[in-house]
Order: sequence, then C-alpha cells, then structure tokens
Amino acid sequence: MSIKQFTYEDVIQARNRVAPYVMQTALDHSIYLSGEAHSVYFKLENQQPIKSFKLRGALNRILQLTEEEKDHGIAAISSGNHGVAVAYSTKLLGLKPATIIVPETTPESKVEKIKYYGGNVVLMGSCYDDAHVMGTRYANEHNYVIVDGGDEDPIVFAGQGTIALEMLHQNPDIDTILLPIGGGGLGVGCSVASKGINPNIKVIAVYTEACTAWVDSIRDNKPYYVYDSASSVCGAMIGGVGKLGFEMVNWIDGFIGVSEDAIKKAMIHMLFHEKVVVEATFAAPVAALMEKPGLIPGKHIGIVISGGNADNQIFIDELKKL
Amino acid sequence: MSIKQFTYEDVIQARNRVAPYVMQTALDHSIYLSGEAHSVYFKLENQQPIKSFKLRGALNRILQLTEEEKDHGIAAISSGNHGVAVAYSTKLLGLKPATIIVPETTPESKVEKIKYYGGNVVLMGSCYDDAHVMGTRYANEHNYVIVDGGDEDPIVFAGQGTIALEMLHQNPDIDTILLPIGGGGLGVGCSVASKGINPNIKVIAVYTEACTAWVDSIRDNKPYYVYDSASSVCGAMIGGVGKLGFEMVNWIDGFIGVSEDAIKKAMIHMLFHEKVVVEATFAAPVAALMEKPGLIPGKHIGIVISGGNADNQIFIDELKKL
Repeated sequence: MSIKQFTYEDVIQARNRVAPYVMQTALDHSIYLSGEAHSVYFKLENQQPIKSFKLRGALNRILQLTEEEKDHGIAAISSGNHGVAVAYSTKLLGLKPATIIVPETTPESKVEKIKYYGGNVVLMGSCYDDAHVMGTRYANEHNYVIVDGGDEDPIVFAGQGTIALEMLHQNPDIDTILLPIGGGGLGVGCSVASKGINPNIKVIAVYTEACTAWVDSIRDNKPYYVYDSASSVCGAMIGGVGKLGFEMVNWIDGFIGVSEDAIKKAMIHMLFHEKVVVEATFAAPVAALMEKPGLIPGKHIGIVISGGNADNQIFIDELKKL
Repeated sequence: MSIKQFTYEDVIQARNRVAPYVMQTALDHSIYLSGEAHSVYFKLENQQPIKSFKLRGALNRILQLTEEEKDHGIAAISSGNHGVAVAYSTKLLGLKPATIIVPETTPESKVEKIKYYGGNVVLMGSCYDDAHVMGTRYANEHNYVIVDGGDEDPIVFAGQGTIALEMLHQNPDIDTILLPIGGGGLGVGCSVASKGINPNIKVIAVYTEACTAWVDSIRDNKPYYVYDSASSVCGAMIGGVGKLGFEMVNWIDGFIGVSEDAIKKAMIHMLFHEKVVVEATFAAPVAALMEKPGLIPGKHIGIVISGGNADNQIFIDELKKL
C-alpha cells in the first residue's frame, strides 16, 4: 500500500500556514563545537512555547481540518511532545479539548503539560508501539480525528520540514543537516525542504544504538513498524519506523548510531557550555558530532535541537558522577 | 554633578537602531509559577546569541560612535556579560577588536567567550568596583572609547529599555515587571519604556541580600557607588549602585531582597521545570516570586530572564544535594 507523499511545494504552503503560530527560533553558532573541520549551528526548537518542534506538523494538520472533523474532536497518540503540541494547538485555536493517548511510561512532566493545555490524557500500553495500536482503536471507536505524530501523514511531515526552510533562510551556507530520527517526519520533512532549495544539501539522521529499527529496516528492505528496543534514555526515539518515513527513506543521505552514554554526555555539554536544556533524544545529533565528527560530511553543519523537555533525573545522575 | 537623563523617545529610537541586530526573544507563559494570584511570563533574553540582554545597550551606543571614536578603539569594563556584548558587537559590525577589562574573578567561560569574539581581555582588580576604577584609568591612558555597561550612559540605559517595549508589545496585559538590579540600567531603562506606554505599570527590582547597596543608598539618600558585598553567587549583581541609575531611581516602584539560597533554588526551578538555563543573578526575580509572592503587586507579571551564562558549579553543588 503506497501512501501519499509530499513535495517541496507542500512545505512552502505549510510554512505560510503555521508561521503566525510558531516561533521563528534562533539559529545560533556554537563556539564550542565549531573548529577547523566544521562550523556548527544549532536550530533551537526548544525555544518553541511547548519546548519542541512538534507544534509545526500538528498545526499544519489541525489548521486544515474541516468543521465536521473539529466537531468530532481531535485525538493524538504520542510519547509526549506530539501530545503536548496537539493539546496546545487545540487550545490556541479555541477548539474542543483534545484527547491524548500516551504510553504508561510517559514522564509525569509531559502528562502535566498536556493536562495544562486542556488535553484529556488516556494512558495505554507500556511503550509507544503498544499505545499506537491500542490508541488508534480507541480513537476510532470514539470517532475522533487522529492527528498523526509523524507516522504516515504527509501534511505533518511537511510541517516539520518548515524547520529546514527557516534554517537555510537564516544561514544559506549550511550544507549538512544533522537531526534525530524517530518516526521519520522530521528527517524526511527537512530533507524534502532543504533539497528543494539546494539538492546538494545532505541530511544525516542520528539514532540511538539502543534502537536500530531504521538501519535494520533498510538492510532487510523490510520496514519494522514495531521494534523491540533496548533500554534507552531516548523515549521519543525508540520503537519502529514510520510508514511514510520508510517509503521516503531515500531522501535521507545517511544514518549514524550513537551510544546512550554519548547522548548523556552531549546533554551535559549542551547544559554546561551551550547553556541549553536538551531532551536526551534530541541530544543524539550533538553526540554524533562530538563522537564521530569524521562521519559528518560538509563544512557548515546545522543541527536541529528538536526540544528541551529533558528528564531531570539524567541531569541529577550525571552531575552526581562529577 | 547631574548626568544627562533619557526619555521614552530615546528608547523608541534605540529599538529602531538595534532591532536588525538583536533577537526578538520569546515571551513565554510559565505553567508552573502561574496560579490564582499571578499569571507569569518570562522574557527570555537568554535566547540572545550571547545569552544575555547586554547586547541591546552596547549596540545602541556602538552604533552611534563616530568614525574617529571607532578608530581609537573601543573598551569596556565588565563582570562578564557586558564584555561579551561589546566584543560580539564590534565583531558583528566589523570594527577593530575591543579591549575588555574584567575583574580577576570573572568566570573562565566568560573570558573565553570574549576572546572568541575577538576581544582583548585585560584582568584587573579583585571585584567589579576595583576593575572599574583601574580599567577606566587604563582605557583613558590608551585613548579608548569606553562603552559603559550601565553606570552612567543614558544611551545604554535606553538600549536595555527596548526589552520592555518588546514585552508589552507581545503581551499588553502585563502590569508588573520583575527584574534584577545591578548598575540600574535594565531597571530604569525598562521602567522609562513601560511607563511611556502605560504609567500604571509597576517595575520591581530584585537584589540579593548579599548586597544591599540600592536600599542602603535610598535609605541614606546617598549613593554608594562602591559597596562591600557579602559572598554571593550573583557576580553581576554585587557592588555599588550606578550613577545614572541612582539619579533616576524614582522610576523604580519597589525593591525586593532575596536570599542566596532562594536564588539557587530558583535556578534549579528554571532548569527542572521551565527547562531554561538561567545565570544566578538573573534568577533573583524568579526567587522573589517564589519566596515572596505577597510582595508582588499586579496580576500579569513579566519577569525579565536577563541571561543564561550560569556557573555550572552551582548546578553540580545543588544537584548533588538531591
């Protein structure tokens, strides 16, 4: 079954649609990670009001819902940030409160935020893959419109791609984009967007070695939509590949795996030197640059810092070791 | 000796002058500090590329220097952030590298940043007050133009005031502004700016109990330009009052003192809940709201989060206690 794909033109339209509602986040030069080999920039999506990029895709979908769909009510299945994005967006637009289905393992801080923005939280399943299966059934039973978090909706993918448009507008010299990969919406969205501007730009996706779903799916030429991951601090990055992401995976120029330790080290680097709070999952591209700079092509590197909803326990544990 | 003061019109001009060079930082609602009594917003000046607001005042001055002044070369005396701001601004504008005189106690991370932006660092004196006396002499001997950090230059004060213009544009409901006070440039600048928009807006300055220079100067009706402070984590807040700040102190509606412990607690609140890295000095207004909410007038509170160049050792020490 082939899914509707999307184009550069869809990303341009997404930008025009979401621009009034999202922050044009800063693109900051990193003093500490730049050197002879690379000049490094952070696209600071943690500056969004909900502290993550997920607002972009969710809003691009919600702003296109029909009145009838809005009347049925909106639902989302999420490991956290997408749920916050959907709850925030429905509140911002004055719609009926959204229903957000999250795995039972979702950090309390994210559950609190969803509730704060008026979302009804439903806990289901012990991981994202389980929540996805059970939540889809639940939402369908209640006749809710599901706002997809990055699994198969080209409209959501196009929304995430607006990040790359902004980055390349802020610094047209960027030749390589490093980003984390979960469902694939951010990676494919940013790749379609950036190659629409300049086909030579490389987009490199970074994953935790605790979940090799993407590279295994590519190797076996068979998408693992559900994937049994090892223990990980990267809640938003484990589990199977997304349907649309896998269909469009050729847009991604390369994959780099990093260890859980390298990810925690990158979080501390971001805190201590860059003075930015970064969620573990989203520190993975920083870890790739710090640990495996030789694998990063290009000279002007734009790293998408996708969000800042870090788990405080990681900071406590890591700082106690010092 | 009376110093030239400044008006709302000067702040408007400052905004037009610096707008192309500074980030319009986010004004974010705080979920955690808002409640029945107060609705709380953070003006996140830590989002500036140098992670502090000081860029605004420094640029407003530097953009008005004559060619002759630029040829002589620029100097600044600073406990850190202002020095980074002047070095960054001169580099941004393609001017001769600035000379930055800092106390010997300035954190290495700030010295590094000044050097990164091409500044020549000169270490002088064991505290800001000493560095100020020695640095002024040094700069005069070398015929440098001193860009004042908030002591007596109305142009710098007007630049800092652009923060309040932005805040009130972003949320016109704000009726109370909470900010930290050191030299007085931020407080008086923001007060002149906000009262130009609405004279009923209250501006409350927060200081550490380790340095009561402002309240002592007011009580004795005698400005203590040099002040012997107790040990403090607030490097940017200790020492004497500024000359122009004291002359215009009636613009400030109230002063609140907070303990060093409350300030460290506020830093951890910002890290753990708001997911923002805040320098100790600049966490003081957050501490005031957390510890003494009954002293804060108004309903819609805008807190200026002036910068994020936190001393990592505070995080390490505080998290080890958990």
